[in-house]
Amino acid sequence: DKPLTTNFMGFRKSLDYRSWVDVGDLVSNDHYLNAADEDRTPQLAMTADLTRSLAHGEPWLLMEHSTSAVNWQPRNIAKTAGEMRRNSFQHVARGADGALFFQWRASRGGAEKFHSAMVPHAGTESRLWRDVVRLGADLSAIAEVAGTRVDQASVAIVFDWDSWWAATFDSHPSVDVDPMATTRAWHKACWARNLGVDVVGVTDPLDGYDVVVLPVQYLLADGTVDGLTAFVEAGGTLVATYFTGIVDEHDHIRLGGYPGALSDLLGVRIEEFCPLPEGDEIPLTAYGSGAIWSERGRAVGADVLATYATGDCAGDPAVTRRRVGKGTAWYVGTELTPDALDTLATQIFTATKPVVGGLPEGVEATRRVGEQGAYVFVINHTHEAVIVPVRGTDLLSGNEGGPHLVRAGQVAVIREG
Amino acid sequence: DKPLTTNFMGFRKSLDYRSWVDVGDLVSNDHYLNAADEDRTPQLAMTADLTRSLAHGEPWLLMEHSTSAVNWQPRNIAKTAGEMRRNSFQHVARGADGALFFQWRASRGGAEKFHSAMVPHAGTESRLWRDVVRLGADLSAIAEVAGTRVDQASVAIVFDWDSWWAATFDSHPSVDVDPMATTRAWHKACWARNLGVDVVGVTDPLDGYDVVVLPVQYLLADGTVDGLTAFVEAGGTLVATYFTGIVDEHDHIRLGGYPGALSDLLGVRIEEFCPLPEGDEIPLTAYGSGAIWSERGRAVGADVLATYATGDCAGDPAVTRRRVGKGTAWYVGTELTPDALDTLATQIFTATKPVVGGLPEGVEATRRVGEQGAYVFVINHTHEAVIVPVRGTDLLSGNEGGPHLVRAGQVAVIREG
Amino acid sequence: DKPLTTNFMGFRKSLDYRSWVDVGDLVSNDHYLNAADEDRTPQLAMTADLTRSLAHGEPWLLMEHSTSAVNWQPRNIAKTAGEMRRNSFQHVARGADGALFFQWRASRGGAEKFHSAMVPHAGTESRLWRDVVRLGADLSAIAEVAGTRVDQASVAIVFDWDSWWAATFDSHPSVDVDPMATTRAWHKACWARNLGVDVVGVTDPLDGYDVVVLPVQYLLADGTVDGLTAFVEAGGTLVATYFTGIVDEHDHIRLGGYPGALSDLLGVRIEEFCPLPEGDEIPLTAYGSGAIWSERGRAVGADVLATYATGDCAGDPAVTRRRVGKGTAWYVGTELTPDALDTLATQIFTATKPVVGGLPEGVEATRRVGEQGAYVFVINHTHEAVIVPVRGTDLLSGNEGGPHLVRAGQVAVIREG
Repeated sequence: DKPLTTNFMGFRKSLDYRSWVDVGDLVSNDHYLNAADEDRTPQLAMTADLTRSLAHGEPWLLMEHSTSAVNWQPRNIAKTAGEMRRNSFQHVARGADGALFFQWRASRGGAEKFHSAMVPHAGTESRLWRDVVRLGADLSAIAEVAGTRVDQASVAIVFDWDSWWAATFDSHPSVDVDPMATTRAWHKACWARNLGVDVVGVTDPLDGYDVVVLPVQYLLADGTVDGLTAFVEAGGTLVATYFTGIVDEHDHIRLGGYPGALSDLLGVRIEEFCPLPEGDEIPLTAYGSGAIWSERGRAVGADVLATYATGDCAGDPAVTRRRVGKGTAWYVGTELTPDALDTLATQIFTATKPVVGGLPEGVEATRRVGEQGAYVFVINHTHEAVIVPVRGTDLLSGNEGGPHLVRAGQVAVIREG
Repeated sequence: DKPLTTNFMGFRKSLDYRSWVDVGDLVSNDHYLNAADEDRTPQLAMTADLTRSLAHGEPWLLMEHSTSAVNWQPRNIAKTAGEMRRNSFQHVARGADGALFFQWRASRGGAEKFHSAMVPHAGTESRLWRDVVRLGADLSAIAEVAGTRVDQASVAIVFDWDSWWAATFDSHPSVDVDPMATTRAWHKACWARNLGVDVVGVTDPLDGYDVVVLPVQYLLADGTVDGLTAFVEAGGTLVATYFTGIVDEHDHIRLGGYPGALSDLLGVRIEEFCPLPEGDEIPLTAYGSGAIWSERGRAVGADVLATYATGDCAGDPAVTRRRVGKGTAWYVGTELTPDALDTLATQIFTATKPVVGGLPEGVEATRRVGEQGAYVFVINHTHEAVIVPVRGTDLLSGNEGGPHLVRAGQVAVIREG
Repeated sequence: DKPLTTNFMGFRKSLDYRSWVDVGDLVSNDHYLNAADEDRTPQLAMTADLTRSLAHGEPWLLMEHSTSAVNWQPRNIAKTAGEMRRNSFQHVARGADGALFFQWRASRGGAEKFHSAMVPHAGTESRLWRDVVRLGADLSAIAEVAGTRVDQASVAIVFDWDSWWAATFDSHPSVDVDPMATTRAWHKACWARNLGVDVVGVTDPLDGYDVVVLPVQYLLADGTVDGLTAFVEAGGTLVATYFTGIVDEHDHIRLGGYPGALSDLLGVRIEEFCPLPEGDEIPLTAYGSGAIWSERGRAVGADVLATYATGDCAGDPAVTRRRVGKGTAWYVGTELTPDALDTLATQIFTATKPVVGGLPEGVEATRRVGEQGAYVFVINHTHEAVIVPVRGTDLLSGNEGGPHLVRAGQVAVIREG
């Protein structure tokens, strides 16, 4: 007769959380930053999007995060001023109804004594404790948000554990292929544009999304292509990368040219994989450069938007687009470098509506909606103040009207209207 | 009543192939390129020279190689246009009477599914399959070569497994000493000059060779010096590097000054090894620079052609030459950098006759000879066409007369006369 | 009825030599250079200072060192001309009454055959053997020094094994924190200035020293602060670095602000550790830059001489000084880079008297004193001759009077007066 949950740990490779998410009464998650990860802020956002998607869009709970440094990394970097507050709001902005800390009080002894806490070794005369107290007041101020749901996402990024496992077996073309890295790159492109994103399984319903992305989705089981095809024909945009749709659910190659499962839909036929030497990049005729991967093949119905500019695959397609029914199917045959991906993403997402438009990268905006109203969360991760073109009352500052000024490092939660 | 063979794997450290080569009826070998190895083309040639030497010069069989990428390297680089054909002809040019592929058809499943094959996953509508078919036609066109032997080599490079094993035990002066690397450097110097090379054991007969090279031949058993001395006195040229002749067959130091076994023949007496710090090079007074190793010692009868220019061994001999009977004995006390080795090799091999003279580095030439005639194989690994001054009929193109134009990346097999 | 000793191995982490030093009749030590260590010369000096401190200042014995290369390092670098002699005299200069070699004769076989010896494989016709013979004559010439003690040191560097062990457990703020490295940096600053140094335990008597240094002395047991406080109040100078005094003897944090044990004495209160990312440096407002570590905190009674110039700790104290009674307590909150430490050391040691003043870095001077007289050892590790302003007779050259010229790489042992 007690509600049941267990704290997940985000993209944990050893456990397919999607397979047991419906056992509990509430989805909860632990999240800790990797201090050495320059993209730890969008990484937090992606993990929150996964957690909410696991919860079928219902509110979830952040069971653990840290006020500052952890103790199990090689160098346990302290959080900078305001970072703990922004982290907390990121989770809530993406659907959490609560954000708990491990731990209350830093212990005097034991293996976790150097893990940060709400009360540090220095005691309550400390910035850390004052920040924790302030966060408590902040959360009280937005209490009415509890129970709302994050608004419908525009983009679905497909991420299946079985494909992750299969794609990273040994004896593959290149050890540099990393589905997680490619997934993160595409999610970051959405995050930087404030596009709502769900992280879904390939058999989840795709209606409601404008764009579906398959980043290194190596394994596509029989039948999954039908749903993707129907999505495109009905007007959706599909983006598939290299090393997607290569095998079936038995890890058996789909013969006759890669990517076997999607060759017809995408309009390309690849003959041979040409992984790049370690650290190399290959110039394309458009967008910029690719890394890790290139391919020998040809378009069979798709428009070729970029080919490899040099090397043994020169002239072969690197980026293609095919019109299918009312929709569009894109193929990206290499791991685009960040600049190249940014250019392509701007082209692909040109008609996709952001939560709030016109914000610079690093100013994160999401919307939660419920019977009590609609709430725009704005988290300014940059070092510049920003004007946010949303009208309503900021529950944190009490400012009414709008547009709202959100200073460097600060947060606003605007009840719209 | 069936002929017997087993496929060797070239320079495999764990097995002394020389000790069991006479058990079978035919010598066969597997050879796969290391994609990360910039010198994989001369490395293939050296391995073929070893295999032929193991076969006492008789025709041998390439039991396995690949049409393109393998699946067991970190990044399995595909072969470039024509590379598979050139690889195949390299083996035949150096004595193979056949070149088989692993594998016929790329499998749908299993650990080797991403290993290249004659029929790729894409099927027979593919460049790979067309290249395989063309190679079959090529081999038919040169069928008359079968059964011929590669012409007498000018150079013997000594490579003994027991010395390799002993030289790479722990607790030695420097972990950077690598007999295989030094052997490869000297073989490449011959390959670049189209000098015929056998890879022999130190007790194999040395008559017929102009030059014998001992690259880091750490272990010289009792009695082996007699053959080397007789070779030099009769007019041969001997080249010995540092860390050669240090121990006997019991791994016992030959006392009284290094290199104990060869000190008299070479005319040098080394007192102490002075390995270099990691990555360092030491300038010489001639040739260029050395790496890995330097030594404190003096010449005792040899002419000193280069000394160390700096450091604690400054003034001590790095390259020496001693006239002995009708011949010459060279000593090289450091690991010469590639440019320095090239300069020295030009001096040492000045009178050694190449298979075909005047070709640029990367245009490989060998000769096979039999009752049916003499055949010059020319393999152009470069990106420029080359004129080959050999008269006769190219069995591949059908062109008669000569000299013959061999285009970039192409092959010719010229029946002389 | 026989005197007993066992050969220590310097700063060997697994054994707290201080806990069993009084079991034997004589302290002895083995010392081998690490060829890859650019500071192997001051490292030898520090190890000799530790050994003498373990012997309570009494003469000790160098049980093993090598004439040249060892055989157990990746690259076993030979000693340069005169290095073996200088090494030997360094040990004697810092209190050894003898310096023995491993080994007499280089063996023909076995795992240690490439370890240097007094008689090398080349035999007695060798520089190595001649150098050994000369060293024997040198030691005879200074035989009267035996039994004297090294003069009172000005500086005590605290080094306790239990703190070393505790400081290097896992799950700590940064893997880059290395008590040994920080200890070496401070000892080198003294060595470069020819300040006499003892390497003491924190409970050893501190009277007689001008300066006491606590380099990353993470663990300070209850009661140890009293002695340090008394030392400062009586006029001494105390220098404590970051991550000092953090825990008690049970590895329990001293709560209320770091460094708990010393916060009052130093006049600083640190709230949070801010380790730096790998390889980063942080500029200070004075002295130069820090590495590895920074901190969030404030001065509580100390003068702030440098703060962090950038980042989240900008404005917080990096170097502080507090006047206490007749003395001074310094705190250094980061790992100073070599230049910054040199600048700070010049300031701290301005009134500390060297054994011999005015010598360039790398000319090492110590004094041994006994009933038979006072002896100044001068070891010139540099490549320039130096004039040493000491009057008396050089026992090695026989030169009388003074000042004495000590040539590059040479040694003098001057009986004063």
